[in-house]
Amino acid sequence: MPYVNIKVTDESVNAEQKRQLIEGATHLLVTVLNKDPATTHVVIDLVPTDNWGVSGKSVTRLRQQQVKEAIQAQAERRAQEQ
Amino acid sequence: MPYVNIKVTDESVNAEQKRQLIEGATHLLVTVLNKDPATTHVVIDLVPTDNWGVSGKSVTRLRQQQVKEAIQAQAERRAQEQ
Amino acid sequence: MPYVNIKVTDESVNAEQKRQLIEGATHLLVTVLNKDPATTHVVIDLVPTDNWGVSGKSVTRLRQQQVKEAIQAQAERRAQEQ
Amino acid sequence: MPYVNIKVTDESVNAEQKRQLIEGATHLLVTVLNKDPATTHVVIDLVPTDNWGVSGKSVTRLRQQQVKEAIQAQAERRAQEQ
Amino acid sequence: MPYVNIKVTDESVNAEQKRQLIEGATHLLVTVLNKDPATTHVVIDLVPTDNWGVSGKSVTRLRQQQVKEAIQAQAERRAQEQ
Amino acid sequence: MPYVNIKVTDESVNAEQKRQLIEGATHLLVTVLNKDPATTHVVIDLVPTDNWGVSGKSVTRLRQQQVKEAIQAQAERRAQEQ
Repeated sequence: MPYVNIKVTDESVNAEQKRQLIEGATHLLVTVLNKDPATTHVVIDLVPTDNWGVSGKSVTRLRQQQVKEAIQAQAERRAQEQ
Repeated sequence: MPYVNIKVTDESVNAEQKRQLIEGATHLLVTVLNKDPATTHVVIDLVPTDNWGVSGKSVTRLRQQQVKEAIQAQAERRAQEQ
Repeated sequence: MPYVNIKVTDESVNAEQKRQLIEGATHLLVTVLNKDPATTHVVIDLVPTDNWGVSGKSVTRLRQQQVKEAIQAQAERRAQEQ
Repeated sequence: MPYVNIKVTDESVNAEQKRQLIEGATHLLVTVLNKDPATTHVVIDLVPTDNWGVSGKSVTRLRQQQVKEAIQAQAERRAQEQ
Repeated sequence: MPYVNIKVTDESVNAEQKRQLIEGATHLLVTVLNKDPATTHVVIDLVPTDNWGVSGKSVTRLRQQQVKEAIQAQAERRAQEQ
Repeated sequence: MPYVNIKVTDESVNAEQKRQLIEGATHLLVTVLNKDPATTHVVIDLVPTDNWGVSGKSVTRLRQQQVKEAIQAQAERRAQEQ
């Protein structure tokens, strides 16, 4: 009687990926604990990046920092190449 | 101090049905455990059918199979009637 | 495909009461949303009173206050009766 | 390794308030339990007022009652002032 | 930033199986959604069989029925063999 | 109507710390969202270290690695001091 809840940030998760998560999580419970797939439920929650925080900051802000840092790193590489 | 979380697939649950779920779940806790309704919280989550899996398949796909099987069964019944 | 999670404080909930909660919650989903009992899962979590807070205080402390107030109220009633 | 889930009714919670909830919850875990912010996750769920019940009624309906009562109280005050 | 919660009935799940569930769930999120394992948290909840219900009955009772049915089936097989 | 669920590993969290988590989380919701403390519920779940995974490993194993690394680091420091 397993219930699996997968929470991820809502960043372009498509139907095929959801299908793989459901299939994979069910397979895991069947393989490891010999559970019946018919009573294995998987629920996927997509959480807006404004609503998920880590290190005290929203994922929205962390993603902005990552983009900013990637742009800076690229600019520095180009400056060195010249 | 009860907290009840009801998760169902997001398939045409209307406001009246939500009202009945809240009323019924509260009544259950009051009747069985003598809880105070004022501290009994009920939260209903409607989960998209793509995001709920059982038997390793999404409910979206299970519903499509059920429709397909119902159509086949009907076709077979009609064929037998002729 | 419903999943119902009932969280209550761990205060003498017996097996018969758990049975009633499971039966009642399943009946609610079947009646209101026409769900299949075979795919309706109910999970009861018993939370220690130290671990549940309301009004900023643990239920352990709230229960102590309730007992204290009940004793004071009784003492006052007796004082008035004399 | 903390995970904090904050569920509130979906009533005009803005990005700045979400930021403060994430920052505050993370700070709480760091201060009280000496947890590492890098492994402290905070997830905020905004629940539609139709889907949250307390005292056996939806928050939608409780809000309507509160507005109605406020209007009545104001009408009574005005009647007394005349 | 994934968070995976696996709820199963508390029926002899050993440390090695928990290890496999954690490893498998993390691998699933890394493979399907390209998530960072360092921010992928997996939490396993073992639920007493009295506290989990399906088809309106506790798993404790369902297991008793299964045992009873297995014994009856065996008795019938033996009766037929004689 | 907030509900806050704090999940942490079960590593020596004492009653005073639980009290501070309940008080702090309630204060956060009151301050940021102007919520009523009387309807603000906080539930703390202590998860055994075998049941919590990050980076694909149980916290039990991560703690063992941390201890092992600390002992090695100390041994190296002492070797350098001689």
